[in-house]
Amino acid sequence: MLFLSLAIILVSTKVLGMLCNKIGMPGVLGYILAGIILGPMVLNVVSSTSEIKLLAQIGVIFLMFYAGLETNTEEFKRTALPSTLVGVVGVIAPLILGYFTAGFFFDDFWTKIFIGVILTATSVSITVETLSEMGKLKGKVGNIILGAAIIDDIIGLVIVSITVSLIANSGGGIDGHSLASVFANIGAFGLIALAVLFFVPRLIKSSGLDFSRKGATPLVLAFALLLAFTSDFFGIAEIIGSFVAGLTLSSIKGKRKIISNIKTISTNFLSLIFFANIGLEAAIHGLTPTIVLMIVALTFIAIISKLIGCGFAAKVFRMSNRQAIQIGSGMVSRGEVAIIVANIGLSQNIIDQDTFVIMLAVTVLTTVIAPILLKFAFAE
Amino acid sequence: MLFLSLAIILVSTKVLGMLCNKIGMPGVLGYILAGIILGPMVLNVVSSTSEIKLLAQIGVIFLMFYAGLETNTEEFKRTALPSTLVGVVGVIAPLILGYFTAGFFFDDFWTKIFIGVILTATSVSITVETLSEMGKLKGKVGNIILGAAIIDDIIGLVIVSITVSLIANSGGGIDGHSLASVFANIGAFGLIALAVLFFVPRLIKSSGLDFSRKGATPLVLAFALLLAFTSDFFGIAEIIGSFVAGLTLSSIKGKRKIISNIKTISTNFLSLIFFANIGLEAAIHGLTPTIVLMIVALTFIAIISKLIGCGFAAKVFRMSNRQAIQIGSGMVSRGEVAIIVANIGLSQNIIDQDTFVIMLAVTVLTTVIAPILLKFAFAE
Repeated sequence: MLFLSLAIILVSTKVLGMLCNKIGMPGVLGYILAGIILGPMVLNVVSSTSEIKLLAQIGVIFLMFYAGLETNTEEFKRTALPSTLVGVVGVIAPLILGYFTAGFFFDDFWTKIFIGVILTATSVSITVETLSEMGKLKGKVGNIILGAAIIDDIIGLVIVSITVSLIANSGGGIDGHSLASVFANIGAFGLIALAVLFFVPRLIKSSGLDFSRKGATPLVLAFALLLAFTSDFFGIAEIIGSFVAGLTLSSIKGKRKIISNIKTISTNFLSLIFFANIGLEAAIHGLTPTIVLMIVALTFIAIISKLIGCGFAAKVFRMSNRQAIQIGSGMVSRGEVAIIVANIGLSQNIIDQDTFVIMLAVTVLTTVIAPILLKFAFAE
Repeated sequence: MLFLSLAIILVSTKVLGMLCNKIGMPGVLGYILAGIILGPMVLNVVSSTSEIKLLAQIGVIFLMFYAGLETNTEEFKRTALPSTLVGVVGVIAPLILGYFTAGFFFDDFWTKIFIGVILTATSVSITVETLSEMGKLKGKVGNIILGAAIIDDIIGLVIVSITVSLIANSGGGIDGHSLASVFANIGAFGLIALAVLFFVPRLIKSSGLDFSRKGATPLVLAFALLLAFTSDFFGIAEIIGSFVAGLTLSSIKGKRKIISNIKTISTNFLSLIFFANIGLEAAIHGLTPTIVLMIVALTFIAIISKLIGCGFAAKVFRMSNRQAIQIGSGMVSRGEVAIIVANIGLSQNIIDQDTFVIMLAVTVLTTVIAPILLKFAFAE
């Protein structure tokens, strides 16, 4: 059945993607919609099996590697400060607003906190794909969004690790040992990432390796997979590792051929499966008025906390209103990161099955709305 | 661990492939050797997990689709007769010689037959990769080899199906019912394949679809996956289906862009995993002198039965000695098809674990030797 499912995914993502392009919307919206339509919510003809999940996982690693490669590192350094502030606000605003909004529906302290934590995530992959389609990935705004999303994810994942270790230990007592180990892991990966970013480009330059030569792409992909493995080893999302790999190689000579090869692998096959799988994983049954209200309220909070919060953070650095809205829109999508976080919450019994499904719905809605917002924010 | 394994596979296949090219050998030899070295036989650092097998499986489907797309259909029709004879002899010679050679080591009738059946397989993927590297895929000899390998596989898989159904039914009594169902399946897929080959190109032509347009590749890949699914549905190897898909589209306009995209996906990622996985699956422990003798004897028979048998068949059609040797060499590799057949034999208790491992060794040896033979056969 796998090959039939893959065939159906490829055709329907491509067809819906082209339809979205026709009406001026980004193709990635069509890819996710294709997944929703094929999945349990509508037709129920394709399921998110372990095989499809695996291809989706490799797909997002390659996508983030591509985003890293396309990043202008000099610009990235210049935008370090605004990126950091946007990223920090992008965590704090949804965390606080999410906590208080959840208070209308839940009593349990940790459930409320965790709903806030899930809302802190930023799925940079949707934004990367949309900006890349519109040719806006390489500008100043694109760089700030990318940088902020990465910082946001790092802080978000630290908070998840802390929350989980706090809850796991006698219902809320702070356990110094597990907290220390979480920070040690993040610190260790941070040091490795800095060392890689500093030494690898110099090593390549002094060795005189030519990356425009035939046969370089598999080696470069291996580097991305190795860093994805390393970040995962330290308990940090794989996509952070592959993005660091891309950043590392973003200044090498002859990168155009490699970028073109990775784009071919990604846009024609793997990333279509990744985006469709987001839709396939969306499953909401038995909608009651309360559940609908919760989904609407949390989606609203999810959007404005990022849009206004990150937009204001951008204004601090004297960006125009238009740029502030663009940056805010770029941070709205929750995508796979929120799904991963929600999954952790479910498996640790911090949130129950119903809450999980509600958070999935919020994630999918922000993910579908984000490309539309971006499209309008960047409209000439 | 998966991403670390994939990184190791990509680096080592590429490095060994380049080393092989340096000494004038085809890169595919290096890819398989990389798998053998990484696998249980030498370093035992990478295992053939279900994830790696899945990527390898998709890899060979794309590889065979590529081979079909690159086939010159007109030339293919002109070489239909020699292809058929070479393919038929390529089944009969190893079957008979394998049966009698097995007679020196085994008593059981069905074990002897099944060893012959395993030896009938031809792995066209190794040959396609080697010929493609040498730029000889599109010539007359390349077409005859491709055609013969396909016919050989179809007959071989029919024989496997018949043998298994014979053995499954009261130790050798012919069961008309299951035999009929095997032939019905093959006939049904044959009819579907002919209909697809006849109607799809005409449909594309009359609809005026332009395959050089951006976004056509995923649709074309979906077609390959769909036919792979269909052939598998009728109990026929998936690679036959994807090859038929490639043949179907081999005459469409604008195929160059698609071929280039599929080649990028294949050569930089998926087919490296496929070839390495052949090496990873090779596991021979506890070599006794008898086992070594069996491996050597059966490997020798495996090679000369195809080399001389198919070579003679080519001579019937007034090919030169050189061309006959080229065609014979092209049929030597057993690759994944023999492994699949041996697996069926093991799971049906037709052969035991020791015999399975011996046949794996023979398969790997023919697969390693085939590219070397081809290289010498085509040397200027």
